[in-house]
Amino acid sequence: MKFSIITLFPNLINSYISESIIKRAIEKNSIEVEVIDLRNHTTLKHNQVDDYQFGGGKGMVLMVEPVVNAIESCKTQNSLVVLTSPQGKTWNQNSARIYASNYDHIILICGHYEGFDERILDYIDLEISIGDYVLTGGEIASIVILDSITRLLDGVIAKDSHLNDSFENNLLDHPVFTKPIEFRGKIVPEVLTSGHHANIEKYRQEGRLRNTFNKRPDLLEKSELSKSDLEFINKLKKVKGDN
Amino acid sequence: MKFSIITLFPNLINSYISESIIKRAIEKNSIEVEVIDLRNHTTLKHNQVDDYQFGGGKGMVLMVEPVVNAIESCKTQNSLVVLTSPQGKTWNQNSARIYASNYDHIILICGHYEGFDERILDYIDLEISIGDYVLTGGEIASIVILDSITRLLDGVIAKDSHLNDSFENNLLDHPVFTKPIEFRGKIVPEVLTSGHHANIEKYRQEGRLRNTFNKRPDLLEKSELSKSDLEFINKLKKVKGDN
Repeated sequence: MKFSIITLFPNLINSYISESIIKRAIEKNSIEVEVIDLRNHTTLKHNQVDDYQFGGGKGMVLMVEPVVNAIESCKTQNSLVVLTSPQGKTWNQNSARIYASNYDHIILICGHYEGFDERILDYIDLEISIGDYVLTGGEIASIVILDSITRLLDGVIAKDSHLNDSFENNLLDHPVFTKPIEFRGKIVPEVLTSGHHANIEKYRQEGRLRNTFNKRPDLLEKSELSKSDLEFINKLKKVKGDN
Repeated sequence: MKFSIITLFPNLINSYISESIIKRAIEKNSIEVEVIDLRNHTTLKHNQVDDYQFGGGKGMVLMVEPVVNAIESCKTQNSLVVLTSPQGKTWNQNSARIYASNYDHIILICGHYEGFDERILDYIDLEISIGDYVLTGGEIASIVILDSITRLLDGVIAKDSHLNDSFENNLLDHPVFTKPIEFRGKIVPEVLTSGHHANIEKYRQEGRLRNTFNKRPDLLEKSELSKSDLEFINKLKKVKGDN
């Protein structure tokens, strides 16, 4: 899978992709990342890429021409052109899964301080937002999209380990514990060291349900629950009602 | 305002804070950023900070001891201790505003590939998620929190320019345009070059309402709308119903 990232801050992207799992994914040829410096695609003096907005107002707005030039420098028939923007469709784990299995080339355009010329929208396939907040630039948003897709690709992290991720089946993950057995008086739950697999799985599924019930009850409505899951949720509701 | 970021990848954080607006905010003393390498806070051989989980399962889990040591190395009476995690409360623009005006010191602990020892929760004030997706690490999440707060602090971006952000009053921003007046046949809306301020403000408010109505109708329910705003929304609803 190939990503082309169009940005005003190529160093930010380059330093991210030279670390950690993304670096390994590139070395293993699971992904290819092309970083495109927007300033190389303007025809204006001083590599200008932004200007004041018509009608007055604070802040500099990204110009349409360099962005369109940059898109056209890397776009092929199979490219999906994405603009990161607080106005976009909200990214989630399901989007990451769909993108990981359906696209060969994603062009990510990093948004800008104070917005972008509206005419850019004519040249993109969709706008994506990573959440309901405003960032100084779209570089972080592009990294979120790149990272969340890449870890789902074959061979990037241990096989099937993402099947236990939070948001799989719209449940949060269960609690986990590692060494030491005791830390400042707090001991790992006995069931986890019992070696009894069925009990461990029951403890974990109840942990997923309890975490989701307590922290993100909105997700429960979207998850597919078994009969015993529902019974456990009803028990949690009862306990909560009793307090 | 001070941020202490506890991470396994100090280079990622350091390269982010040496660019762009965050760099300027540090130079102007609007913020201070301390990057704490988790590996300096373990007492184990080979700087070990993670291990397999009890009960079996894929992936390495962050250990409680180094994290608690790292927290205790920088925590004061006024610190807020935040763990980035997909299980956290979802971050939004309103959280950024509240944090920007209410805290002096935020400790951000970057989560890890496959989770963290549950006992870490005893030492933090809250878990924050930047969205419903899973990332390879919490570094990006910490950067989102740092960045979205920092741009709201006095003197970091042009005064009051964030009052026109998307998500202010739960509306998306209006369309903006910059030079050239014409690009490949598409012309900037005449009103924006008219110099008529009242008409420009009307065009912009209708743009905010139209963008929100089309792209994020869920936000409209939470925004405070004037009588003329509501009339405009009703018009949009009618047009949509007619098609």
